[in-house]
Amino acid sequence: MAIVPIALPLEPLLAALDMAGVAVFAVSGALAAAKSKQTIVTFAFFAAVTGIGGGTLRDLLIGAPVFWVGRSDYLGICLVAAAAVWLLKADRWRMSALLWFDALGLGAYAVLGAAKALNYGVPALPAVVMGVLTASFGGIIRDLLAGEPSILLRREIYVSAAALGAGTYVALSVIGVGMWPAAVIGAAAGFGLRGVAIATGLALPGYRED
Amino acid sequence: MAIVPIALPLEPLLAALDMAGVAVFAVSGALAAAKSKQTIVTFAFFAAVTGIGGGTLRDLLIGAPVFWVGRSDYLGICLVAAAAVWLLKADRWRMSALLWFDALGLGAYAVLGAAKALNYGVPALPAVVMGVLTASFGGIIRDLLAGEPSILLRREIYVSAAALGAGTYVALSVIGVGMWPAAVIGAAAGFGLRGVAIATGLALPGYRED
Amino acid sequence: MAIVPIALPLEPLLAALDMAGVAVFAVSGALAAAKSKQTIVTFAFFAAVTGIGGGTLRDLLIGAPVFWVGRSDYLGICLVAAAAVWLLKADRWRMSALLWFDALGLGAYAVLGAAKALNYGVPALPAVVMGVLTASFGGIIRDLLAGEPSILLRREIYVSAAALGAGTYVALSVIGVGMWPAAVIGAAAGFGLRGVAIATGLALPGYRED
Repeated sequence: MAIVPIALPLEPLLAALDMAGVAVFAVSGALAAAKSKQTIVTFAFFAAVTGIGGGTLRDLLIGAPVFWVGRSDYLGICLVAAAAVWLLKADRWRMSALLWFDALGLGAYAVLGAAKALNYGVPALPAVVMGVLTASFGGIIRDLLAGEPSILLRREIYVSAAALGAGTYVALSVIGVGMWPAAVIGAAAGFGLRGVAIATGLALPGYRED
Repeated sequence: MAIVPIALPLEPLLAALDMAGVAVFAVSGALAAAKSKQTIVTFAFFAAVTGIGGGTLRDLLIGAPVFWVGRSDYLGICLVAAAAVWLLKADRWRMSALLWFDALGLGAYAVLGAAKALNYGVPALPAVVMGVLTASFGGIIRDLLAGEPSILLRREIYVSAAALGAGTYVALSVIGVGMWPAAVIGAAAGFGLRGVAIATGLALPGYRED
Repeated sequence: MAIVPIALPLEPLLAALDMAGVAVFAVSGALAAAKSKQTIVTFAFFAAVTGIGGGTLRDLLIGAPVFWVGRSDYLGICLVAAAAVWLLKADRWRMSALLWFDALGLGAYAVLGAAKALNYGVPALPAVVMGVLTASFGGIIRDLLAGEPSILLRREIYVSAAALGAGTYVALSVIGVGMWPAAVIGAAAGFGLRGVAIATGLALPGYRED
C-alpha cells in the first residue's frame, strides 16, 4: 500500500469533527445499552465499540496504525459518553435530538473515512467503501453484540446516505475539487439524505420476487 | 513474519480462479439478501462481505496488504454480482447450480488461501487454517449479519471439505510435490468431498452425551 | 506505533501461563460446542476461536504479528483441547472446576494482554483495554457464533474482573513497580474478583430508568 508522502491535511477542523463523531456514536452505543438495562461496564463496552469500531476496521484494512491505540483521548471520550448517559439518564431525553446528531456524525465520518483512505493511496471505489464502513460498522457491531436486528436489515436510508457522502467526496476529489469544498459538500450530501430519511421515513424498496 | 522472497507463483490461472471465487461467493451473499427481501444496498453489502470476507481475514492474520483495498476490480465484481442477482431475479433459478459453483469456489479458495499463507512463510498447520478461513469466513459473516443459523452449526460437510482441500495442498507441498499438481489435487479433494455432501447429504455425526 | 526496543520480558513463566490460558479458553469453546451437540469440526473451530480470538484482536490492534500464525503449537493446543472434550465427554464433569480454570485464565490473560501492549509502546488506557479484550473477546466471538446471549449482556462480574486485573497491572507498572510483582498482583486481583463472583453470584447493578 503506497503511503502518499504528503502531510495529512485533516487537521485541525476535521480532527474536531472526528472527536465529535466518536462522541456521538459512543452516546448511541451507550443508549443501546440503556435500552436493555445493562451494567455500567457494558455501557462502556458498547460506547467504545460503537464510537471507534468503524474507524478501527478502516485502519486495519488500509494498513494504517489503528487511530485510537497510541493515545488515550478517543477511549476517554467513549468512557465519558457512557458515564454521561448513565448518570444523566439520557435515554429519557427526546431521542429525535440524538438521531440528528447521529446524522451529523454519519456525514462527517463517511467523508473522513474516504479522505483517510485516499490519503493512503487507496483507489476511488475502495475509498468509498472505507467511508461507508467508517460511518456504519460501529453500529453494525453494536447491534450484533446486543442481539438486535442489524441496521443493515432495515430499509430506512442509512448505509445509502453514508455511500452518498463518501461517494460525493471521492468524486469531487477525483475531478480536482479542493479538499475542503469536497468535504463540506460530501458531508452535507450524506447528512442531507439521512436527514430526509429521518424526517420522512424515506426507505429503499425491498427485493420483490414478482 | 518472514516473507518468502520468491515471486508469487499464483498468476495467472489462480488469479482467474480467484476472481471466479469472489464472484461465486458474492452471488451467494446476494442470494441471502434476496431471501429476506432486502434493499439493493444490502444486496451489495452482503455480496461484498461474502465475496471478500474470507480473504480479508486471511490477509490481516498473515500480515499481507488486504487484497482488494489497493484496487477496484474485486469490489466491482461484488457490485456486479449484487446487481445481477437483483435484476435477473436469480433467486428463482434452480439453486442446485449455485451449490455446485459454491463447491468449486470452496475448493479453489481453500487451496488459494493455504498457498498464499505458505508463500508468506506461515507453517503448515496455520496455513491449513488460513485455507479454511478463506473458504468459509465470508459465509460465516454473511450468516451472522443476516441473523441466520451459522454454516458452522450445520452438520453437513462444508468446513471439513475446506480443511481437506487446504490440508491436501499443504501436505503435498511439504513432501515436495510441485505447486500446480498440488493445487489441482487439493482443490479436487475439497470440491469432491463437498460435492458428495451436496449429492448425498453426507454429514458429520454430532456430539452425543451417552 | 513505537516498538520499545527491549527484549520481551514475558518469557518463560508467562509463556507457560499463556499456553495454559489458551488451553483453558479452548476447552470452554469446545464445551460450548458440546452443549449444542456439534460435530468434531465445529468443536475444533469453537476451541480455536475461543482460545486464540482475544489475543488475535489484540495483536491486530497494536500492530504486532498475530501470535499464533507463525507457529503450530497454539493451534495444536486448541485441536487437542477439542479432541479431549469430545473423547472424554468432558461436558459431564463438574463444571465448577472449569469455571475456576477460566477465572485463572481470565486473570493471566488480562495481565498478559496489557503487558504486551505496554511493551509495544501503547499508553496506559488503551493498554488496559487490550488486557480486557485479550481476556474476553474469544468468549464474545464464541457466543456470537453459537447464537447464545453474549457474556457482555450478563450482569455477573466478568469483564469487570478483566478490567481490574489489567488496570492493576498497568497502574503498578506506571508507578514503577517491577514487572513480576505487578503481574502477580494484577492477575491475583482479576482472579480474585472473578472468584468472588463465581462463589457468590456477585453482579453489577443494571441501568434503571427510575
